[in-house]
Amino acid sequence: MALSLARRMDKLKSSEIREILKVTQQPDIISFAGGLPAPELFPIEELSVCQSRVLKESGAQALQYSTTEGYWPLRERIATRMNKTVGTNITMGNVLITHGSQQVLDLAGKVFLDEGDVVLCESPTYLAALSAFKSYGCSFKEIITDEHGMLMDDLQDALETTPNCKLIYVIPDFQNPTGKTWSIERRQKLAALAAQYNVAVLEDNPYGELRYEGEPLPSVKSFDTHDVVLYAGSFSKILCPGYRLGWVAGEKELIKKFVLAKQGTDLQCNTLCQMVICDFLNNYDMDKHIATIKETYGKRRDCLLASLDAHMPQGVTYVRPKGGLFSWMELPEHMDATAILKKSLEQKVAFVPGESFFPVSGKKNTLRLNFSSMPETRIIDGVQRLAAVIRDAMEG
Amino acid sequence: MALSLARRMDKLKSSEIREILKVTQQPDIISFAGGLPAPELFPIEELSVCQSRVLKESGAQALQYSTTEGYWPLRERIATRMNKTVGTNITMGNVLITHGSQQVLDLAGKVFLDEGDVVLCESPTYLAALSAFKSYGCSFKEIITDEHGMLMDDLQDALETTPNCKLIYVIPDFQNPTGKTWSIERRQKLAALAAQYNVAVLEDNPYGELRYEGEPLPSVKSFDTHDVVLYAGSFSKILCPGYRLGWVAGEKELIKKFVLAKQGTDLQCNTLCQMVICDFLNNYDMDKHIATIKETYGKRRDCLLASLDAHMPQGVTYVRPKGGLFSWMELPEHMDATAILKKSLEQKVAFVPGESFFPVSGKKNTLRLNFSSMPETRIIDGVQRLAAVIRDAMEG
Repeated sequence: MALSLARRMDKLKSSEIREILKVTQQPDIISFAGGLPAPELFPIEELSVCQSRVLKESGAQALQYSTTEGYWPLRERIATRMNKTVGTNITMGNVLITHGSQQVLDLAGKVFLDEGDVVLCESPTYLAALSAFKSYGCSFKEIITDEHGMLMDDLQDALETTPNCKLIYVIPDFQNPTGKTWSIERRQKLAALAAQYNVAVLEDNPYGELRYEGEPLPSVKSFDTHDVVLYAGSFSKILCPGYRLGWVAGEKELIKKFVLAKQGTDLQCNTLCQMVICDFLNNYDMDKHIATIKETYGKRRDCLLASLDAHMPQGVTYVRPKGGLFSWMELPEHMDATAILKKSLEQKVAFVPGESFFPVSGKKNTLRLNFSSMPETRIIDGVQRLAAVIRDAMEG
Repeated sequence: MALSLARRMDKLKSSEIREILKVTQQPDIISFAGGLPAPELFPIEELSVCQSRVLKESGAQALQYSTTEGYWPLRERIATRMNKTVGTNITMGNVLITHGSQQVLDLAGKVFLDEGDVVLCESPTYLAALSAFKSYGCSFKEIITDEHGMLMDDLQDALETTPNCKLIYVIPDFQNPTGKTWSIERRQKLAALAAQYNVAVLEDNPYGELRYEGEPLPSVKSFDTHDVVLYAGSFSKILCPGYRLGWVAGEKELIKKFVLAKQGTDLQCNTLCQMVICDFLNNYDMDKHIATIKETYGKRRDCLLASLDAHMPQGVTYVRPKGGLFSWMELPEHMDATAILKKSLEQKVAFVPGESFFPVSGKKNTLRLNFSSMPETRIIDGVQRLAAVIRDAMEG
């Protein structure tokens, strides 16, 4: 007789992306699935110098327990950097270090969501955010989203008519999965509406610094005059994901609630790796490192788009992202991306069908393409094979 | 107008231990508070060699995303080690790597607890377990506990009469906060009762390998014929807490549920540090390292007990722990340990009052003493000062 589990476990299913990733670890697969940064760009030697220095100079501290809030010199560096890159005006007291930005999603669920509460989100949106929130028993309401972000009329309508609406979740920069970026007007209006209805916004921004064209836009958080916006950041895409370090920035009293939630969850983040990142920021040029990443990923994006332009049949459309890791494709309406995936895996090409990124109503004719993790020759080869599979299916 | 938070946030308060720890970071305080391992025993040089080797040989892998389950060679080492040290019969598939054993508590809450469910626990018990479980809306039922563990009649009575009883939480080896160790008979009976009533047991064992006298006892998990026992382990006390790495071991299908819960929570643990610990286990002698820790802590325990014997007034009793990090003191019934703490802080001595370790009915005349983190001269000095404060209060 099986043990009796919590009701939430009925709703948690294995992530489709993760299951697919298991198949795509075979080296002969050309994978547009996943969202891995390119490992050849990790600053391995520099981080090796940093970690040796930290252990040599402060080993006892680096291996010991520390505070839940995080290593304060790193919190300070994060605050300063955010003020420069996303237009905020914060200090160390506004920052809590977390186990990746994924943990921010879980903690936001813990801090805000009771069973029956509603989260408003883009449509589609980040899959693992849905599972993080879902485990607190919430439901989702999709806000109609175009190429400039959520439609503000639809958002206002939802805020007006949805009881128990506790959180608005958005990824305004190079969104996962669509690669789309919000306009400055929508950012400003989102902050204003959230303040008016007194509902928290969680602005998730793991890709914002990876912009390959155009000017950076101020964050939603920078328009937060009423302390309702929380900002989730991450070192996973600009440094490395293996450290599992990110942060949440917000109003100080609210951050204290996140600290309390984190205390019971896992006490604190890895002390050593917090100090190593701080040492890296002190001794190397992060902007220069990010410039290197941008150069490589920018070329890969260009290569993906040029290949799609050259090979995809009429009726297939896709997003031209200005940054980030992903493009998003729509097939003709009658087509099913999961069926296409089965065919394309026979041709050793993988991607993620878009359906599961929709919290409520999945669109079966969509799919996500990652372009950060492969060299250009493989991207070209992969797009040619995928285009052939799609063309076959359209003609068949 | 403040944002509307989840109901659980009303129940989460800042941990008394953590607030006290903030004061006790002043170097002139003799602190029996906290539960810090001795940093002078961290194998800093060895870990430095390991981390350099891991980055040099497998840097791209160590800094990249990996699976939620954890680094498989480490899971294998953990399974093998548990089979040797705590009498289990498990394999890698039974093990999930977590952010310290604290995360096991949070994940157990996520997997098992709905609002209104009941957790049965020792009285007193580990404070941060209470906050981990509490955030899932459960309540607690204290089982009467003597020097050999929970009273099995009382446990059976609770199992018989408590609806929604979903989890039995125990720390059978050198318990936090009391330092007490369960008898083998109680361990066996606990596993049998849990199987009979089909209720999960979470056996939390961060200190088990730190035994200073007597023979190691088999774990509750080793008597788990019906797959109802989960075992939480940790590297924090036998290697270092700064890496935030521990694990949960249990029946494979149940571990898959924990994997799902962890996926939404923080995706996975730090890849690098998992590989570093594995490298340490491959290249150094963990048993020898633990022997060094035991020698030092054993002497500190002896020193604490000898000092207490020499200086504490009649009417004060305390546990003689056979291992772990803590002893537990009972003052005469009318006394209040929090009032004593205020006086002893004036004498620059800190400890944790016992009241908050009781989930339901706090006993004000109790306190916890840590002996792992200070050299013997300071322990002697601290006990003398504390004894003087207690004697004053008894006479006053």
